Amino acid sequence: MGYSLKNHPDTSIENTADRWISYVAAAQMPDGYLDTYYELGDISKRWTELEKHEDYNAGHLMEAAVAYYEATGKKQLLDVAIRLANHIDTTMRINNRQWFSGHEEIEIGLMKLYNTTGNENYLKLANWYINQRGKHIYQYGTTWFTPQYWQDVEPVKDQTQITGHAVRAMYLYSGTADVAVASGDTGYMHAMKNVWQDVVHRNMYLTGGIGSSGDNEGFSKDFDLPNKDAYCETCASVGMVLWNERMAALTGDVKYMDVLERSLYNGALDGLSLSGDLFFYGNPLASNGDDERSKWFGTACCPANISRLIAGIGGYIYGANNNSFWINLFVGSNTSVKINNTNVDVNMQTNYPWNGKVSININLEKSTAFPVYVRIPGWTQNDIVDGSLYFVKNGTKQTLQFFVNGKTIDFKQQNGYAIINNTWKKGDVISFEYEMPVLEVSSKKEVLYDNDRIAFQRGPIVYCVEGADNNNEAWNIVLKQNEPVQTINYKVLNEDVVALQTKAVNIQPSADGSALQSTEKTITAIPYYTWCNRGKNEMQVWLPTKMKEIKVNY
Amino acid sequence: MGYSLKNHPDTSIENTADRWISYVAAAQMPDGYLDTYYELGDISKRWTELEKHEDYNAGHLMEAAVAYYEATGKKQLLDVAIRLANHIDTTMRINNRQWFSGHEEIEIGLMKLYNTTGNENYLKLANWYINQRGKHIYQYGTTWFTPQYWQDVEPVKDQTQITGHAVRAMYLYSGTADVAVASGDTGYMHAMKNVWQDVVHRNMYLTGGIGSSGDNEGFSKDFDLPNKDAYCETCASVGMVLWNERMAALTGDVKYMDVLERSLYNGALDGLSLSGDLFFYGNPLASNGDDERSKWFGTACCPANISRLIAGIGGYIYGANNNSFWINLFVGSNTSVKINNTNVDVNMQTNYPWNGKVSININLEKSTAFPVYVRIPGWTQNDIVDGSLYFVKNGTKQTLQFFVNGKTIDFKQQNGYAIINNTWKKGDVISFEYEMPVLEVSSKKEVLYDNDRIAFQRGPIVYCVEGADNNNEAWNIVLKQNEPVQTINYKVLNEDVVALQTKAVNIQPSADGSALQSTEKTITAIPYYTWCNRGKNEMQVWLPTKMKEIKVNY
Repeated sequence: MGYSLKNHPDTSIENTADRWISYVAAAQMPDGYLDTYYELGDISKRWTELEKHEDYNAGHLMEAAVAYYEATGKKQLLDVAIRLANHIDTTMRINNRQWFSGHEEIEIGLMKLYNTTGNENYLKLANWYINQRGKHIYQYGTTWFTPQYWQDVEPVKDQTQITGHAVRAMYLYSGTADVAVASGDTGYMHAMKNVWQDVVHRNMYLTGGIGSSGDNEGFSKDFDLPNKDAYCETCASVGMVLWNERMAALTGDVKYMDVLERSLYNGALDGLSLSGDLFFYGNPLASNGDDERSKWFGTACCPANISRLIAGIGGYIYGANNNSFWINLFVGSNTSVKINNTNVDVNMQTNYPWNGKVSININLEKSTAFPVYVRIPGWTQNDIVDGSLYFVKNGTKQTLQFFVNGKTIDFKQQNGYAIINNTWKKGDVISFEYEMPVLEVSSKKEVLYDNDRIAFQRGPIVYCVEGADNNNEAWNIVLKQNEPVQTINYKVLNEDVVALQTKAVNIQPSADGSALQSTEKTITAIPYYTWCNRGKNEMQVWLPTKMKEIKVNY
Repeated sequence: MGYSLKNHPDTSIENTADRWISYVAAAQMPDGYLDTYYELGDISKRWTELEKHEDYNAGHLMEAAVAYYEATGKKQLLDVAIRLANHIDTTMRINNRQWFSGHEEIEIGLMKLYNTTGNENYLKLANWYINQRGKHIYQYGTTWFTPQYWQDVEPVKDQTQITGHAVRAMYLYSGTADVAVASGDTGYMHAMKNVWQDVVHRNMYLTGGIGSSGDNEGFSKDFDLPNKDAYCETCASVGMVLWNERMAALTGDVKYMDVLERSLYNGALDGLSLSGDLFFYGNPLASNGDDERSKWFGTACCPANISRLIAGIGGYIYGANNNSFWINLFVGSNTSVKINNTNVDVNMQTNYPWNGKVSININLEKSTAFPVYVRIPGWTQNDIVDGSLYFVKNGTKQTLQFFVNGKTIDFKQQNGYAIINNTWKKGDVISFEYEMPVLEVSSKKEVLYDNDRIAFQRGPIVYCVEGADNNNEAWNIVLKQNEPVQTINYKVLNEDVVALQTKAVNIQPSADGSALQSTEKTITAIPYYTWCNRGKNEMQVWLPTKMKEIKVNY
């Protein structure tokens, strides 16, 4: 609600939020504690069971409080969050306190609160939580709750591999990145760069989804990326966006933005129906027609999480400091920033991701010189994921051109950004157009599930073949070699998209059912995030290129 | 070792056992407690954590002690078990004791000890453990350890549905059956009959395996019986044998023996390699070639459990009381029983399960009259599982004939047994031959995974098609309608088996890889329990009958 009000002020939503906030405030105990599970149950047992998520909930409350304060200027929820944070700080950050958080998130919340209030205790407490890992404070007597599950194998600064529950891991590293920024601690950064490589080079789906295993809602072993049985929790893709935004801000390296965009437009967005009220918990890359989005459900992390992401999307488009301006995502939008102590209004117009044409109007109080960093998406250079795991088979690196007021302008490339140095004056227009060929993507051979298969990508959008567009079948096709792929304007329900079409071999039982027939047929592929909006049916992202894939269907 | 020594006395094994028993005895604490996890760790924490399996281990120790005592007459381990049982009894069976066993088994062990020692405290303690369920004494803060998982939803006497961890459930009901026998408590029997129906009518594989889900190592929802992703833990099939043996003894109803035999020859035996030293933890009914038996592994429940079962198989063949004699399984074997105070020696000769010919020699001290109950397997009457879930498509009910000394003899049928009343004299021979046609079995339509599929069964043996016998492929065939199936004598490694052959449609890529070809080919099916002894390769039990099953293979 806070993030949404920032984009779209709405009295009705604000009134509802105020009413709910008053309930939340009334539930807070005099000492600042707030968690109704124990308040309505046995309060003597608070802070004894790490899987009750007391600090996880507290972290979300802190983030909500800051978002609501920033949107409305109202402090009631912020004050609740501050009292709660103070309570936790005095409870935890004492000598020999044996505790760690089962499900990370409080680190993120505390850093939001620190950045808003400037109270250094919150930074210290966030850092304390991070440092509790790797000490094996809790050991459960089961195979489920392993040190891996909780990112508790080693201290965070020594970590090199992604392990365990995917959402917990993403929240940990997002909070750690926040602490790294505030504290300037390079140890965290070093560790996170290693872990990030472990994620994207060995454990990430083409959709930017992570956490392939439903057993632990998380990571299994390197390259174990099944398509039909992909878990790929929506929240984990949201977590990828959160973490990569911070890594991008910390490093200025475009590869983090590339992964962010991939997770955003594919793995995360797929969690939400086109109608906006149905949710996938898991996001498989192939379906036999058993999968379907649900209405609001019990463990409602994903619905709330994807809503938070979509409402907060405005925060990911631009970057700025007092000297420079960054364009990271290409989304029609307005923003105002202050550069060189000059107010700069920016308006971006684009139909991205359906084409790569972008136009940016710059308005300033007075002419001033500063560099504009325009992201050059990896896919324009045939680079799918940091030069690893996934490869483009048919592409060429694009030659780039940027224009100011219709005339080409010099730029230099650095960390994947085009840096346009210019003295900007009122009404200047930056424009450029990235080509959007259809890319045929293949996987590293270690990803056994994708061997002899191809996936289509265009711009940041990953495609799938769904039964709804293909006579209710998607598992009976084999791609032909060197067959051109066309783009067409298409509708999935009321969603205008660019779809793909190509001729493929279609396998069908003969009329008498005694044999199989192979015929040529035009198939239609749609953006992955739009699938399963027209009923349950077959779908696949990775399309077979060899007849041998056609076998008994399990 | 105890069970094995009963069949095959062996000084070397007995010496090893005696040495190990002396170590076990030395580890016991003065108060009788015995569990090295806490004795070598923090003894003050014993009996605080139900998932540490203290009573589960104690139960196995009691069973081992009784088996070893019965085989050798040696009491050292029995005395350890008695001291341990007494310790647990005085620790648990006191006012308001809050405890229940996370993993059942102690009930079975206590009843073995009760039947051997006659000490009623053990019966009372076993009953106490059973009655702790349904009280929700423990609640873990996770979705994994639910009341369902522990058979803790309701008191055992009120239970009607099978839930949770399959092995735990089987052990609970086995122990409960033992208590029901000893106490004559009909409430337990009533509940177990309902639960049994829930298992075999809605939740059992054709192989007699149970527990389809790996998430909880147990039951999911009714009719959810995936083939490739079947968990079907070996231990759960062993548990089915244990429980059904008791249900058969309690009721005299053949249906329990039918299920026992099914689980024994298929779901359980598949857990063991033909070489006897490799083990499946799970036993899927279809494989893409990823599955393989392991050497002895960490959580070594299955290896020890299948060894216990095989060594103890002699206990399942016959039944006797002072008036009657039962033949339940058809296995070449000898036994001696006392009926009408007369010693009766029995020798059975048969090549079952490869054919249905059985010959039984009876030797007695003096002629005496008593009924012999010969089991009529359900499959001879086209009854696969208690008239539900699985059906025979092509069979006819066999007409039965029994012979004494080569001449037909009258019999009456009751509860699935042929009752032969006769005055038996030394040297009498009972003989009969059950026909063993190849049965084509189909599933109730609710089992979606088996729709439009057929499985072959002959006698108690369920068959599968494995790549090793079929040019390394098993997922590229579709059965033809009304095609005769032949039996042949066959070898899987050195194992003599009866295999099946039929003509089926074979799907293969064309030479240039551009299309699929359907050709007729003879396929060979082998007993399910023998698969995966010749390397990893494709396998399936349920064979498609429609071309539409041939699609992309996930």
